[in-house]
Amino acid sequence: MINASSALKIVLENAPLLAVENVSLLDSLGRVPSHDIIASQDLPPFNNSSMDGFAVASSDLRRASAKHPRTLKVIGESSAGRAFAGKVTSGQVVRVMTGALIPKGADAVVPIEKVVECETERVRFLESPKPGQHIRSRGEDIRRGQIVLKSGMPVTSAALAVLAACGYSRLRVRRKPRVSILPTGNELVGITEKPKRGQIRCSSSYALAGYVEGAGGIPKLLGIAPDTKSRLRKGIKAGLDSDVLLVT
Amino acid sequence: MINASSALKIVLENAPLLAVENVSLLDSLGRVPSHDIIASQDLPPFNNSSMDGFAVASSDLRRASAKHPRTLKVIGESSAGRAFAGKVTSGQVVRVMTGALIPKGADAVVPIEKVVECETERVRFLESPKPGQHIRSRGEDIRRGQIVLKSGMPVTSAALAVLAACGYSRLRVRRKPRVSILPTGNELVGITEKPKRGQIRCSSSYALAGYVEGAGGIPKLLGIAPDTKSRLRKGIKAGLDSDVLLVT
Repeated sequence: MINASSALKIVLENAPLLAVENVSLLDSLGRVPSHDIIASQDLPPFNNSSMDGFAVASSDLRRASAKHPRTLKVIGESSAGRAFAGKVTSGQVVRVMTGALIPKGADAVVPIEKVVECETERVRFLESPKPGQHIRSRGEDIRRGQIVLKSGMPVTSAALAVLAACGYSRLRVRRKPRVSILPTGNELVGITEKPKRGQIRCSSSYALAGYVEGAGGIPKLLGIAPDTKSRLRKGIKAGLDSDVLLVT
Repeated sequence: MINASSALKIVLENAPLLAVENVSLLDSLGRVPSHDIIASQDLPPFNNSSMDGFAVASSDLRRASAKHPRTLKVIGESSAGRAFAGKVTSGQVVRVMTGALIPKGADAVVPIEKVVECETERVRFLESPKPGQHIRSRGEDIRRGQIVLKSGMPVTSAALAVLAACGYSRLRVRRKPRVSILPTGNELVGITEKPKRGQIRCSSSYALAGYVEGAGGIPKLLGIAPDTKSRLRKGIKAGLDSDVLLVT
């Protein structure tokens, strides 16, 4: 008897690739792309703040502490979708919101909870921030040019977000395989029938159909084939125009 | 802040039940039935053989061994779908196929590999079978009247087989919830657009849509709502005729 992994290998080596369809991003869920998908840009696309607070040059606050607070000047605001256009230089900070672009010259974010705000224009810092703190760096999740989804790997919900972030609104995917299921056996009757003595309802084909659907195929239940040569031949013939024929 | 389990409890306590639909068995995959589903019969529905071999009365072979073989008479055959109508009495056996009904009088199956077949009509046994061996007993998987699927639990592929075996060709299930997703934020642009400095493509809503679909809902992506009262109000209004509105 042939073992399962050898059988799978033979099947995969002999299975032709299915035709390619161009579908909308949402419709690609659970489908398999026909080619490797490459990140078209760095993600995140720019250094941005992971906290509401102040973007600072960490060197400016190297000696700041509760005993020796340092007061810096607020020169502007960077909010999500409205970036601060200027540059942070010594003695200056920019108010930042979560997700906002980190202005030039700044290399750390001090969360709003950690500062004593004296006036709208001036802020007192009680701690020395580490360079890079509370900053999500450009490309720290994904680098431009990196493969984000390999050909033949199913598109997951999480992958949808990455693909959307990269601007893929449509995807080339393989068409779903059509899988015919042929239940065979003299003991089988249809599920709406009442089985006589020694008969059972044809049930496993429904489970198979469910698994096919769950795996991204299109199941088709063929009628029951009793154990005679001619009826089996007829059933098998009916399933041969599918991509896969499962005979139970 | 409210924790996740308390929040879930509040949501579930206040969520109205969705309307009931009557769908075909295959279409019920992943849906939730509106009522407990009861086994209409024992499964397996009758004692049947798990092996090809001979149905015997185990008491008949109590002293059979390789040294003292016992020869019994074959009085008929029980195959899947064609049950043997008579009864096994002392000195007799019935040839059985896998899945076939165990004839009256027999309480064990001796696999074909374990016997020495002398003639078509007579079989020599070299072992003493245990009562019940190689017999799948009526109701050993599921008892008539047992709940096979609780109201509100999703129909899995495996459940489809049980439901089919019980003769359920249609099922009353809750309709799929319609879930609107409203992405908000000044920094967001559509996935076909090229983000300007500090902007990002609206991506997480696609992941949410995928998860909604995976969980059996019908996702609907609303347009991006920027951070203004009027645009947010408009967006929320557009989502209120769904069963669920997710605001990011």
